[in-house]
Amino acid sequence: MLKACDTVVLLSGGLDSATVLAMALADKKRVVALSFHYGQRHEHELAAATALADAAGVEHIVCDIDLRTFGGSALTDADLEVPHGRTVDEIARGIPITYVPARNTIFLSFALALAEVRGAAEIHIGVNAIDYSGYPDCRPEYIEAYQQMANLATRKGVEGRQRLTIHTPLIALTKGEIVRRGLELGVDYGQTCTCYDPSPDGAACGECDACRLRLKGFAENGLRDPALYRTEARTPA
Amino acid sequence: MLKACDTVVLLSGGLDSATVLAMALADKKRVVALSFHYGQRHEHELAAATALADAAGVEHIVCDIDLRTFGGSALTDADLEVPHGRTVDEIARGIPITYVPARNTIFLSFALALAEVRGAAEIHIGVNAIDYSGYPDCRPEYIEAYQQMANLATRKGVEGRQRLTIHTPLIALTKGEIVRRGLELGVDYGQTCTCYDPSPDGAACGECDACRLRLKGFAENGLRDPALYRTEARTPA
Repeated sequence: MLKACDTVVLLSGGLDSATVLAMALADKKRVVALSFHYGQRHEHELAAATALADAAGVEHIVCDIDLRTFGGSALTDADLEVPHGRTVDEIARGIPITYVPARNTIFLSFALALAEVRGAAEIHIGVNAIDYSGYPDCRPEYIEAYQQMANLATRKGVEGRQRLTIHTPLIALTKGEIVRRGLELGVDYGQTCTCYDPSPDGAACGECDACRLRLKGFAENGLRDPALYRTEARTPA
Repeated sequence: MLKACDTVVLLSGGLDSATVLAMALADKKRVVALSFHYGQRHEHELAAATALADAAGVEHIVCDIDLRTFGGSALTDADLEVPHGRTVDEIARGIPITYVPARNTIFLSFALALAEVRGAAEIHIGVNAIDYSGYPDCRPEYIEAYQQMANLATRKGVEGRQRLTIHTPLIALTKGEIVRRGLELGVDYGQTCTCYDPSPDGAACGECDACRLRLKGFAENGLRDPALYRTEARTPA
């Protein structure tokens, strides 16, 4: 009844996870993509995730979990403001208000459950520790500890069978390198949604941390981001 | 706006978590109790959790997450049957079909998010590795690895502030010892729901693994379980 697969790809619908999905597929993995409706500020990234999964022809599961119950982040609490216009140095300094407490831990836990049920020995996640927002749960030491825990958490862990590996193919790449790799693999970045604060029509603001890091990635390749922006500003971080 | 607390107590509504809640309160902790509506077979345990939290006067948060999306367990898939009439030796052998993939990992991840938002340095969970069903995510080595990961996952982990501790006060106790400790603390076990497969009126079956381990706990103290059973059998494991 349950379809076997090789890996669970966490797919937010942003630039990074779209690239990871393309990388897993290029490696001939049988993929199930997993997204979350977690009370984020907007639905555009989820729509992008669905479009990406459909275009790639992979099974896509969306879990409903409401992190607004807890609050504490500008991404799940409309009363908190998303920062705009910060430079890459400012972005790198400290953990911003857009950090969602334990979000990757929660996402990976659902991925772990799905991997166990489907017999997958891998999870792919597009965390990045170079051009990133300083989130604690994007760092290599965190992923390493998660993998260690995951291998004790499940049936396989007890029975000593096949180990689970958490793949983070972007973790040591710059945004420019990620964009280059994605374009080589044919990723349509016009389909992705990265912005923390898009307009109702989905146009990116071009000024939040996520937009500025993304624009930096295209600028490093001398390219124009194909995504829709609501301003002509498009200043890289 | 967000109420500070000392610990997040995972409260399923069963005998173990009711005891853990009483222990945390006896230690004068400011508690927020956390339960899940996860697609379990029945709502009786959630009703019990609410009654226990209300009786103790503690804040209670119920998260809605649908683990039926993944399947793979008799507790979340009505097509799979809950085993009945097994002995304690049979229960201890292997991981039963009632194991829910990555359930404690998912529950702890939400507890971690809540702890971070509320400034709690502790999580309490009623796992038990003596009279238990062989679930991988109840073992001390798993909890140890989870704690290590959790301390890298959050804002505090990065900023090197106060560490998070996962308390498992029942992990090395027999069911008999758990019941004794709970009764000393005044836990009303008549309010708890342990059975995997109760009748529509909430009466326990007395024959599933959870009932038999529970009945063993009362039998070891020469006591009768005050919970409602649908049979007079009440055979301890």
